[in-house]
Amino acid sequence: MKAVKFFEIQDRFAMQRGHLISPTIAYETWGVLNAAGDNAVLIFTGLSPSAHAASSPTDPSAGWWEDMIGHGKPLDTDRYYIICINSLGSCFGSTGPASKNPETEKPYRLDFPVLTVEDIANSAAHVLEDLGIDQLHTVVGASMGGMTALAFALEQPARCKRLVSISSAARALPHAIALRSLQREIIRKDPLWQNGQYDTKGHGPINGMRLARKLGMISYRSGQEWAKRFGRERAPDFTESDTPFGIDFEVESYLESHANRFTGSFDANCYLYLSRAMDLFDGLDHGGSLTASFSSLQLDSAMVIGVSTDTLFPLVQQQALADALAEKVADVAFVPLDSLQGHDSFLVDMDRFRPAMAAYF
Amino acid sequence: MKAVKFFEIQDRFAMQRGHLISPTIAYETWGVLNAAGDNAVLIFTGLSPSAHAASSPTDPSAGWWEDMIGHGKPLDTDRYYIICINSLGSCFGSTGPASKNPETEKPYRLDFPVLTVEDIANSAAHVLEDLGIDQLHTVVGASMGGMTALAFALEQPARCKRLVSISSAARALPHAIALRSLQREIIRKDPLWQNGQYDTKGHGPINGMRLARKLGMISYRSGQEWAKRFGRERAPDFTESDTPFGIDFEVESYLESHANRFTGSFDANCYLYLSRAMDLFDGLDHGGSLTASFSSLQLDSAMVIGVSTDTLFPLVQQQALADALAEKVADVAFVPLDSLQGHDSFLVDMDRFRPAMAAYF
Repeated sequence: MKAVKFFEIQDRFAMQRGHLISPTIAYETWGVLNAAGDNAVLIFTGLSPSAHAASSPTDPSAGWWEDMIGHGKPLDTDRYYIICINSLGSCFGSTGPASKNPETEKPYRLDFPVLTVEDIANSAAHVLEDLGIDQLHTVVGASMGGMTALAFALEQPARCKRLVSISSAARALPHAIALRSLQREIIRKDPLWQNGQYDTKGHGPINGMRLARKLGMISYRSGQEWAKRFGRERAPDFTESDTPFGIDFEVESYLESHANRFTGSFDANCYLYLSRAMDLFDGLDHGGSLTASFSSLQLDSAMVIGVSTDTLFPLVQQQALADALAEKVADVAFVPLDSLQGHDSFLVDMDRFRPAMAAYF
Repeated sequence: MKAVKFFEIQDRFAMQRGHLISPTIAYETWGVLNAAGDNAVLIFTGLSPSAHAASSPTDPSAGWWEDMIGHGKPLDTDRYYIICINSLGSCFGSTGPASKNPETEKPYRLDFPVLTVEDIANSAAHVLEDLGIDQLHTVVGASMGGMTALAFALEQPARCKRLVSISSAARALPHAIALRSLQREIIRKDPLWQNGQYDTKGHGPINGMRLARKLGMISYRSGQEWAKRFGRERAPDFTESDTPFGIDFEVESYLESHANRFTGSFDANCYLYLSRAMDLFDGLDHGGSLTASFSSLQLDSAMVIGVSTDTLFPLVQQQALADALAEKVADVAFVPLDSLQGHDSFLVDMDRFRPAMAAYF
């Protein structure tokens, strides 16, 4: 059974670029909100996960941050009321391009308004209001979720006293924009994308999504990890045949299996919207410089974690974010980690990430 | 007028994996072979260039290494007889998958035998024989050309006393294999690829080639360069429109123009073959370890140049190559350069590369 809950923003929700929609926001919770209402931790996700960050009695299947959330874990459900939001624009219960447009009774598809990271952040504030939470204990996010957490702190300053930003940044660098732009173009060039008008109940542009996922994996992990893990090992079914372009190497087989697991689960148009939102996000939009933008923050403390092998959100960006936060926020910790797994380390290198998170919480 | 010359290997040429073909090898030369026949410098190219490395009286159009080759330049045509080879398997005069298969009178396409870097190296030896060159002054190559130069030194040890390897390696790392494998799959998934049977006189899988080129550019340059060069600048024709997935950023516009320049000029099947040859190349194949493989080398000296911002052939690979060469070769120089432009630096950062090359020559 799914543990996901839904909140419908009945009043029309004003998106950052002026469009009005009435979205539903899907979320899951763990633990109990205390009487003071001050133990809530809000988690924003990366581009592709659902709100199912951890298992629960209702849904015992493992979540995407299973090792981080639960009894005795860094995000301890005995102490905190944990909320994880499925981003506006995604396809796991929250409203997005795959959802029905109430005006047409058909999926929005490309009629969905331009989505920004600020929209994701602001829509979550409605959920908090519904839950009776005036102020969070902490807002947490990794990757796109880190951008969303920062946007939340900027857009909803009174709700936000503590921020944890993981492998994220105040704005995307052109290298990351180039990678995501190419992923989007690969999807759009798949003839089955059909200019976004594919059957949202069918498979859609499955080849485009597979290739985009492979490019994603290349940018999410590190060359050093793969050198150690795969080297030049041949794929299990490798035969020194003349088949010109099959799978020769273990690393190709690894990408293949990741791509196959991903496709089918994520709507292509939703992927396009969320991906572009990451490119568009710019912390400087809130004031012209990071210092000016951050002047409205009401944070007491922040922790910024980055990983030395991350090439998508390089460590220098976390350092810059921490430095800019430190001009306004009393207590800022910059935590560089030497994980081998690149941008994805927060999902897999629990030996380094759990202690860092536990120290903060 | 083109300055390219052709040599037909009339005897059937034995490829490394046992196939026999009668290939033509295209090449250009600059300068004059001296009476002793000992001033010849052989250049192998990266994956995509032709043999037109520099202008000449016959063909005054600029070559791909124009700033490196010529009167008074590091590869000084007053002193050296320079030869640049169009790789076997390419499509600029040398025999490859786009060439006519004499047995069928149709293009080889995927019937072309599996191509290896050693095949490219060995076919060049026939050209040298025809030119009356027993021993080179130096063999030079960058990127795939560096692999080919190393393969030449291993396969043709008596012809080779000096080696210059630039931004290359003794074998591909899994990160580079993953990138090239994905480029190949992007091309193969273009419906116009038609399992390699596209009309070789037409455009072929143009979308696949454009996308593969964009991915190439992302891997050839560096994030640091782009951060400095593009930042978050918007494209000239950027309008804050609702068009969901056009070109917003300058970096996207840059990729677009590079992709457009590339397509049409390079045959897709040739690209696939050459790309895979880079993955398959392994200097260790010649002996089980680099030290064992290199024991047959007859080099007197070698220079290995690498660039700190190169993520496709990271500096650690050039260091490893230089170290392994030093066990056998008396005089080995390892030259790490701090160029900003990543793997492509040897094409553009002439302020660093020219002095390094001039010092060796």
